[in-house]
Order: sequence, then structure tokens, then C-alpha cells
Amino acid sequence: MKIERVTNRVSLRRTIESGTEEQRSKVLEIIADVRARGDEALKSYTEKFDGVRLDSLCVTDEEIKRAYQNVSAEVLRIIQEAAENIRDYHERQKRESWIMTKEDGTMLGQKITPLDAVGLYVPGGTAAYPSSVLMNVIPAQVAGVKRIVITSPPNKDGTLPAGVLVAANELGVKEIYKVGGAQAIAALAYGTETIRPVDKIFGPGNIYVALAKREVFGQVAIDMIAGPSEIVVLADETAKANEIAADLLSQAEHDERASAILVTPSMKLALAVAREVEKQLETLPRKAIAAASLENYGAIYVTETLAEAVEVVNELAPEHLEVMTAEPMQLLGQIRHAGAIFLGSFSSEPVGDYFAGPNHVLPTNGTARFSSGLSVDEFVKKSSIIFYSEPALKQNAEKIATFARLEGLEAHARAVEERFKK
Amino acid sequence: MKIERVTNRVSLRRTIESGTEEQRSKVLEIIADVRARGDEALKSYTEKFDGVRLDSLCVTDEEIKRAYQNVSAEVLRIIQEAAENIRDYHERQKRESWIMTKEDGTMLGQKITPLDAVGLYVPGGTAAYPSSVLMNVIPAQVAGVKRIVITSPPNKDGTLPAGVLVAANELGVKEIYKVGGAQAIAALAYGTETIRPVDKIFGPGNIYVALAKREVFGQVAIDMIAGPSEIVVLADETAKANEIAADLLSQAEHDERASAILVTPSMKLALAVAREVEKQLETLPRKAIAAASLENYGAIYVTETLAEAVEVVNELAPEHLEVMTAEPMQLLGQIRHAGAIFLGSFSSEPVGDYFAGPNHVLPTNGTARFSSGLSVDEFVKKSSIIFYSEPALKQNAEKIATFARLEGLEAHARAVEERFKK
Repeated sequence: MKIERVTNRVSLRRTIESGTEEQRSKVLEIIADVRARGDEALKSYTEKFDGVRLDSLCVTDEEIKRAYQNVSAEVLRIIQEAAENIRDYHERQKRESWIMTKEDGTMLGQKITPLDAVGLYVPGGTAAYPSSVLMNVIPAQVAGVKRIVITSPPNKDGTLPAGVLVAANELGVKEIYKVGGAQAIAALAYGTETIRPVDKIFGPGNIYVALAKREVFGQVAIDMIAGPSEIVVLADETAKANEIAADLLSQAEHDERASAILVTPSMKLALAVAREVEKQLETLPRKAIAAASLENYGAIYVTETLAEAVEVVNELAPEHLEVMTAEPMQLLGQIRHAGAIFLGSFSSEPVGDYFAGPNHVLPTNGTARFSSGLSVDEFVKKSSIIFYSEPALKQNAEKIATFARLEGLEAHARAVEERFKK
Repeated sequence: MKIERVTNRVSLRRTIESGTEEQRSKVLEIIADVRARGDEALKSYTEKFDGVRLDSLCVTDEEIKRAYQNVSAEVLRIIQEAAENIRDYHERQKRESWIMTKEDGTMLGQKITPLDAVGLYVPGGTAAYPSSVLMNVIPAQVAGVKRIVITSPPNKDGTLPAGVLVAANELGVKEIYKVGGAQAIAALAYGTETIRPVDKIFGPGNIYVALAKREVFGQVAIDMIAGPSEIVVLADETAKANEIAADLLSQAEHDERASAILVTPSMKLALAVAREVEKQLETLPRKAIAAASLENYGAIYVTETLAEAVEVVNELAPEHLEVMTAEPMQLLGQIRHAGAIFLGSFSSEPVGDYFAGPNHVLPTNGTARFSSGLSVDEFVKKSSIIFYSEPALKQNAEKIATFARLEGLEAHARAVEERFKK
């Protein structure tokens, strides 16, 4: 790994992958086609892109049953325990409607209401993660969303990965469709004969999925445009090089565009981690991917001080941050931008990917500067509640009317005055 | 106003205004130009679109002083009282970081952190509302945002509206720029010599502003793409026709594309409201705008039952909903989709626009189905906190490793196992 001394505050952020105009026009075409031809368009794109002609887009009970035969009892138990941890954590995010009252009879508040229907996109291929199902479906259920739909591109034999189906079934999701890509996003946004539209679309995907989500944004809501995974480890000389190296590699193996960065004031640690990474890399099954990721987006930044290292971390605003210093808790208040913060030597990042409970859907590519990981909040909306009594309105009518006239809106003023006309 | 009987559940939603490809390419050009030429691009667009050549984009103390001379003491007091109400309401939305602990030493939680810097776009012309300043700046301040920037297009004489400047100054906003349109959004997203970039952009604007916000989304966060204002009044035979008519007109006067709709099971009320609207419309200063809005987007829907009327309301998912029935509170639980809910006869919609406290930035065009009005939540982000103790990790290491291997991610498994290697 490259070791660089960071002496000035630098801009380390990657540019956002926004797709080409050619990709965008392809996506626009697919969306238009799905809106025009519905299911038939979905089936023909599935044939073209996934290599299988489907009679029905729906996953059947039979397919679910077969999926269970391909998942061991041990894995099933782990999925169940992970689901329990995730539910336990997300339950604590749930918010209640509230009101405030005033003596003049005014009542103001916020009504929290779950979304009616949400769609979850689960990518296919190497990224077909049952954990994605858990992380998206459970907060929706905790929020109280009644209709939860999953779509995922089928394998060449027309099936979905067993782990995905088992995870979905364990959570009680009944509506699962075998369709991927921009066409799946179009179907979720606009609906087809088989797939009723949803109100918000969640889940990661390739550039076509991302562009499609961007295009349907407004028609429906979307969660975020997720980029490749990232880890930043903030460590001092007390940290263990082998542990840091293993954690860096766990992100690097995701994707050639994943990013794994160590920030430390210790040159000694930097050198030791670089050596350990080389050593551990050798025996990894996904060695080629991890090596390419480290080559392109990996780095070890050596700062003068720990305080400076914290500033570099805030500049990077990483998806995952591990704090492996002598007193990690002490730094928590200084960390302004990170999707998830893993504290101490035993909070290896994979703990959060699967099991601990917090959501693994997190802001990437520096967007932790302004956005948050997935939570129950993303599955509800808030409506203001306003009740004014007669005395409350009488008391304030003139002020409201004056303000309205200041903004040139006479009918606003008159609406209030109409109540007190003789 | 048109009166229609609604016998079936109908789709009443307007299509989203998404701009033309020509407008989009204009916007892309402006964004690219601002990135390339910075302040100089801002000044030349301001000359072109706003008709004034500025030496400096910054609002000076002198300009603030002059603005105060153009605002009466009464208006100033109302602005201050409105600000107090808005602050009081939004303070109650504030959330604290939280943790949960387990006996094995595990600590999980969420850290709430304010955004570093936000930009507020205030439209110019007839829509230059001081209330916009209050509604966007106060939740940012309650959230703890340190840097708050306002941009707004200047008048032909190179000034900003007095009300906007006074409202901004009352709240202590120091960074105010005289620039509007897509160029302002580009500056907020990418920065120029004068304007440092922000992390999230708020505020309404014309189609160019909306398209620009859409384009910079990802580089920064944006609040929402706001459409024309809307009101739906849900009323039964106990409601007063003159009050409903006045409230409908208060939305209709906003914009020719604004929408004002009455939904009622009472044909008698429908007829009376239609008559009252005609009568009150006659003497309105913004009669032409209100009449066009009613013609194009106004309607009175008459249903068979009140329950059916509630379903029509949910279908419309209005920005503003007034419930003027005998027992409005009783219907609250049935209303699933509305930006703000005004209950009872004395909660005229303008009460919420300026004064009561809840935010007037609300989801339009049916997006209340999946989104919420502006709140303190939009000015903070949440980071997960994960601390695993040695015993906690030891207890779960094997399960996490198994799950990782199920997803084909060996390095994830090894990262956990690395902690317990001899």
C-alpha cells in the first residue's frame, strides 16, 4: 500500500460516478419502454440482460421451499439471530407522534405515519446478499410499512439466490419478483400488470440501477445513490497491525472500486500495516479484486498528530470508520462525518455488516458529510398538525394578516379575517 | 369552480414537472460555466438574467441597515414573534444521540451531528418571502448548523427585498449573496472564489433552480423538488362555505399552477362554496392568477360518504389539508398522506404559512405519500455507533464468519478471526 505523509489538509474525495450520457439515454429508453409495455418489457429485458425467458415474474412458494433446502440449519439460525439483533436496534429508532398544547387552546404537533408501500432492490451476481434483505426489510417493518416488495435479477436458470429467498421468507415478505436493472426500478416506480407501484425504492445496484433511481426520483422517493464500499481506520501506535490489515482487506475485497484507508500519526504502524496487508492478501480468494482496490483507492496517510488524523477522517467522511486508538471513546465527539463508527479493537467492521444490529446501508463517497445510514426514519413521513382555537386565532389574526400583506398575498390575509366578519 | 361527483377511487395526481431537455442542457451549461469561471460566471449570469451588473455578490451591512428603514416596527415585531413560535415548535423536534448497552460489554447507538454548512435559496420576484428565511434558517439553527448561507437573485437595482434581509439579520445570518437561478445552486454545490460550497441546499425556486438542484444532488444533498402550492379542504355539511372559499382562494392566489380542491360528501356545501368562491374572487388583487389556478387545478369533488372523502384525500396526498368537519380530531388517524393537517374551523391555512410554528416547507404534488415537511431532521445526520467488547466478539465471531462466507466474502470472515489468532 502507498504510504503518504499528510502535512496539509487535503481534498481526498473521489468524484461521484454519474454515468455517461449514453448510459443515461439507455436508462431513459428502458423506463419509457416499461411504462409503455409493462410486464412484456420486463420479460424481454430479463431475457436480454439476465439470459433467461420467464413465464412469470413472481417467486413461487415452490421456489421458496427449494431455497430452504440449499441453506443449512446453522446458517438459518444465524440469519434468525442477526434479524433479531437488527430488529432490536431499529426498534429503538421508532418515533411517536407528539403534540404540544397551549393554554389558549392551540394544539401543534407531528403525526408519524408509515409509508404505504416500499420496494427493495437486491442486486444479483456476486453482490446477492441476504444481509441486504434483513437491513432493508426490518426497518420497514419496524416503521409499520404494510406492503414490502423485493425485486432481484434472476440467475440464468430463472431462480433467485437461496439466501435471499430464505431471508425474505423469514421476515414474512410475500411479494418477490425476478427482475433486475433499470427495468426493475421503472416497474417499482410506475407499475406494470404484475407489479403495483411503490412509494419509495431502496437498495443498491449497478450504474444502470443508480441512474434509473435518479430518473424516477420525484415520481417516487429513493433512498440514496450508493457508491462502492469504504473503510477508514483511524489508529495510533497502540493498535495492532494485523487487525487493521485484516479489516482493510475486508472492504477491499468487495469491489475493485472499494476504498480502504488507514490514517495514523504513527509511521511505525503505517509500515507494519503495509507489510501485513501484503502478507494477508496473498491467501485471499478474492485477491485480485482486493489488490486492485488497494492499488486504486487504498492509502495509508501519516499525519503529524492524532488531532490532525481526526481532521483527515472528517475530510474523508467515510462510510465505515474504525477508531483503534488507546482511548477511542474520547474521540467520538470530534468525529463529525462518518456513516458508522466502530470503536476499539474488537469492533471489526464485518461485525456491523451482518450481525450487531445497526444498519449496513450507509452513505458512501463522502456523502456522510450530509446524509445518514438507513433507519426507521426513512420508512415514515411526518405530517404537521395544527389546531387553532377561536381565541387563539382572534388573538393573532391581525398579525397574520399583516404578515401576509407584507408578502403581497391579500387572499391569505382575508382568509384569516373571514372568520371574524360580522 | 367545477363540481364533480367522485364515485370511484380515481387517480387525481398531476404529472411532475420535470423540465424539458432544452432547459436541462441550459442548466448543465450554467453549472459547468460556474465551475470553470467561478464568480465571473455568477456575475455575468446575474447581468443577463437579473439585469444588473454587480461589483460584489455579498450583501453589505449598509444594505442591511437600509432594509430596516423599509420595514415598519409592527412588521419587525411580527417577524420576531413568528420566529419565536417557529423556534419553539422546532426545538421539540430535536433529537439526542442515544446508546444501548448489553451486559457483555456491547454498546450500540446513534450519534446525531449537525451538518457543517447549508445553503438556502430564496426566490426573487413575487415569491420573495421573508417567511421562507424563517422556515429554513430556524430549523438549521436548532439543529446546530454552524454555517448558514442565503442566496437570492437581486432586483434590477442590485438589492435584495428588505423583508428577506431583515428576517435574515434578525436570525443572525451573516453570509448573504446576491445571486439566483441555476448559477446560485452551482455556486452552493461547487463553490467559487467568494462562495464556499455547502453540504446541503434548501429552498424553492423556478424550473431552472429545480433542475439545477436535481443535477447537483449527490455532490451535495438537496431538500426536495418543490412544486406549486396545494390545498385540499375536507369538509362536511357543518362547515361554513365562506371560510372554505377564502381558504381555497388563499392557495389559488399563489400561482396559476397552484391547486385548490374541496372534497365533501355534501352537495349543498359544494354549491355554496362554488358561489362563495366566485363572489370573493371578484375583489382579489391577484384575481387573474387565482382564477387561472381554479380553472386549471381547482375542483370540488363530491363523494357519497365522508369515509370516501377521506380516501380521496389520501389519494391526493395534499401539501396542505384542512379538516373542517363536525369532529375533525376523529379523522386524524385515517389521514395517511398530507404535508400539514389543519384541524377545525379556526385553523385557516395561512396560520401555518407564517405564524403558528410548524414548517411551511411541505411536500407538494402528491409527494406527501412518501416525504415530509422540512424539519430539524433534515439538518442533522446520524452515525451508527458500534462497540464490541472482547467477550462479545468472541461469543459471536464464528457466526459472523459463517455469515460472511455464505456471502462469499472470505476476508470479512478472516477480519473477525484475526482477533483470536494465537
